[in-house]
Amino acid sequence: MAYINEHYLKLTAGYLFPEIGRRITAFCDANPSANVIRLGIGDVTEPLAPAVIQAMHAAVDELTQRSSFRGYGPEQGYDFLREAIAKHDYQARGAQVDADEIFVSDGSKCDSGNILEIFGEDNVIAVLDPVYPVYVDTNVMAGHTGAADASGRYSGLVYLPVTADNDFVPELPKQRVDLIYLCYPNNPTGVVATKEMLKRWVEYAQKNGSVILYDAAYEAYITDPSIPHSIYEIDGAREVAIEFRSFSKTAGFTGVRCAFTVIPKGLKGKTRDGREVPIHPLWNRRHCTKFNGVSYPVQRGAAAIYSPEGKRQVRETIEFYLANARLVREALTKLGLKVYGGVNAPYVWLKTPGKLSSWDFFDELLQKAHLVGTPGSGFGACGEGYFRLSAFNSRANVEEAVQRFAKIL
Amino acid sequence: MAYINEHYLKLTAGYLFPEIGRRITAFCDANPSANVIRLGIGDVTEPLAPAVIQAMHAAVDELTQRSSFRGYGPEQGYDFLREAIAKHDYQARGAQVDADEIFVSDGSKCDSGNILEIFGEDNVIAVLDPVYPVYVDTNVMAGHTGAADASGRYSGLVYLPVTADNDFVPELPKQRVDLIYLCYPNNPTGVVATKEMLKRWVEYAQKNGSVILYDAAYEAYITDPSIPHSIYEIDGAREVAIEFRSFSKTAGFTGVRCAFTVIPKGLKGKTRDGREVPIHPLWNRRHCTKFNGVSYPVQRGAAAIYSPEGKRQVRETIEFYLANARLVREALTKLGLKVYGGVNAPYVWLKTPGKLSSWDFFDELLQKAHLVGTPGSGFGACGEGYFRLSAFNSRANVEEAVQRFAKIL
Repeated sequence: MAYINEHYLKLTAGYLFPEIGRRITAFCDANPSANVIRLGIGDVTEPLAPAVIQAMHAAVDELTQRSSFRGYGPEQGYDFLREAIAKHDYQARGAQVDADEIFVSDGSKCDSGNILEIFGEDNVIAVLDPVYPVYVDTNVMAGHTGAADASGRYSGLVYLPVTADNDFVPELPKQRVDLIYLCYPNNPTGVVATKEMLKRWVEYAQKNGSVILYDAAYEAYITDPSIPHSIYEIDGAREVAIEFRSFSKTAGFTGVRCAFTVIPKGLKGKTRDGREVPIHPLWNRRHCTKFNGVSYPVQRGAAAIYSPEGKRQVRETIEFYLANARLVREALTKLGLKVYGGVNAPYVWLKTPGKLSSWDFFDELLQKAHLVGTPGSGFGACGEGYFRLSAFNSRANVEEAVQRFAKIL
Repeated sequence: MAYINEHYLKLTAGYLFPEIGRRITAFCDANPSANVIRLGIGDVTEPLAPAVIQAMHAAVDELTQRSSFRGYGPEQGYDFLREAIAKHDYQARGAQVDADEIFVSDGSKCDSGNILEIFGEDNVIAVLDPVYPVYVDTNVMAGHTGAADASGRYSGLVYLPVTADNDFVPELPKQRVDLIYLCYPNNPTGVVATKEMLKRWVEYAQKNGSVILYDAAYEAYITDPSIPHSIYEIDGAREVAIEFRSFSKTAGFTGVRCAFTVIPKGLKGKTRDGREVPIHPLWNRRHCTKFNGVSYPVQRGAAAIYSPEGKRQVRETIEFYLANARLVREALTKLGLKVYGGVNAPYVWLKTPGKLSSWDFFDELLQKAHLVGTPGSGFGACGEGYFRLSAFNSRANVEEAVQRFAKIL
């Protein structure tokens, strides 16, 4: 019998969101008439921008004719998309990223998981706590950890707490680490990193030869002009950082699937015997060997968000979600809850009332108010006692949700 | 500095197809007026079926309305697609595969590479030679091999030669192996496996506790009714085989991206201390943690090929490619070449004339006839002296290619 990857057996319970789904299904089966409002999983609810729709239709039509048919595209993505990204997302903000440093993919979840394949086994890895579970779980699956303790923390990982006690600003690791996952605007807490904070991280990485895995999936939600959208807005970041971006939350692509990863040409790693090796060709090789490019009509749709009308349409939807976030934030603050995030991010992070555990609050909210959120403890030990609400819903549902909160609190 | 995955440094030269691309580009730059005909990379050329186009347009339109908008879908694929696959591709052929054993993905290249993640480090792995390079390269990247020798063979892998000397029927491995990659109809040789042959493999796997990784990406090209389309047409295969399928060659989806992998619930692996572990939940966990589902309009397009008109349209295109294959096969046979495959597969495999090496024949064909094929040695040591031509092109190009062959041979 073939050997399995036993590291999978270390994974605790289910992945967070399937477990939430299981509880909702059980509740709805028992209460078929309940009107459950979901502010849980971070999934968008509003239609695609008309510019995206138009571009996707046009691309599908190209596939009806032999003369305009496209088969395999470049694994790294079409130039029309890579160039639009380099220009609008980076160069326009003064960040030096070239088109050939961009790898278009079908999702940041995939990229932030798969990126571990090009790194060695001996790296010390740091994550914030609470944290997007994919960073942790993919390290467990890759054998970079030992077993989990009672709080769900795996031995072998360096956890950096972010709670109200430190104003959600992690301390730099006390020990040297090789890989550091950072996500700003942060999922799940909704807080952002100032230029000063990112500068400290870049300096730490330069000093320690670390690589920062920077997840900027929510950058489109930044409203404060002083907050950097990309880590490459920080001097020196090109030598120490990989950046993940996604169209999921920027343009409602959660079901359409498009994202990208930036690997600057200057980024290097090392072999065990100390030779320096550029990272870009490693990821290029991984991408070409194990990936075949993103669906052509999807890439056309993604490129359309960089047109003037695409930009405007996408912006309107983001403003809509941000207004939802403000509604939730202000209402819950009025009700006396401690509330964080929700200004430069679609997530509101709250302290559970009355010292309830995260899952107890989840169950109470579901049972009493037919509301779904995400238990903070699902994001890590330091998320215990917190709860995430997302702004992705209709205005009517958000208003109704706020009223239900008022009733039960 | 962070450690890199040094196994990548063992990979010899570039991945085959980029190297071909490099030589074509160099030739075209030097000979800008040359009309190069490509029968090299296995990429389709004909438009999508009208039923697919219609379904994709309709799905894109659903994303214009809040009421029909779809965000994250199930990671494993929508039921409408999984159920169509189970019914039409399996149950209709008497193979017992259930919808929840099907994992929809964005490509068989990805799946056949990523599948290694759920298996352990201690497995003995067998591949045919010649072979689709992705099977070998992903094992190198995962650290399952030593270095390559002068012929390009990696130590640690078990290679099973398939050449004219054994009528392209591999012997069963002399030693016990844990994982065996089989691809039928075969890429690159175009030969097929009879029921009898597959039965021998299933029996071998049952006896040795091996897992067969069965790549059936070209099953739609089978014309002989006695040839199995799926390994699950063989009794007992559900306990020993994983099957990869793709819409790329079946329905022209190389640029649209959709495929699927079947993991039967009965398939098991083991831990080092001998406990049996079902494989299905491991892949499900991998799929949910590192993948976010296939683009919704793409899944609707894929499902449309199972409608009566979709089936008919897709069949017509396959017949068209198969007629191309017959043209090439018959013409080259008449010219005195030894030619294999091309009957139940879109690939024709030929012995290079005059004992030319595969790459020398590649260069000669490109220089003298402005024709591109794929050097057999790119698929492995036993592919040396062979050459692959694909049937994916217009009729006019195939006819022109055949005439050019006549001129130079």
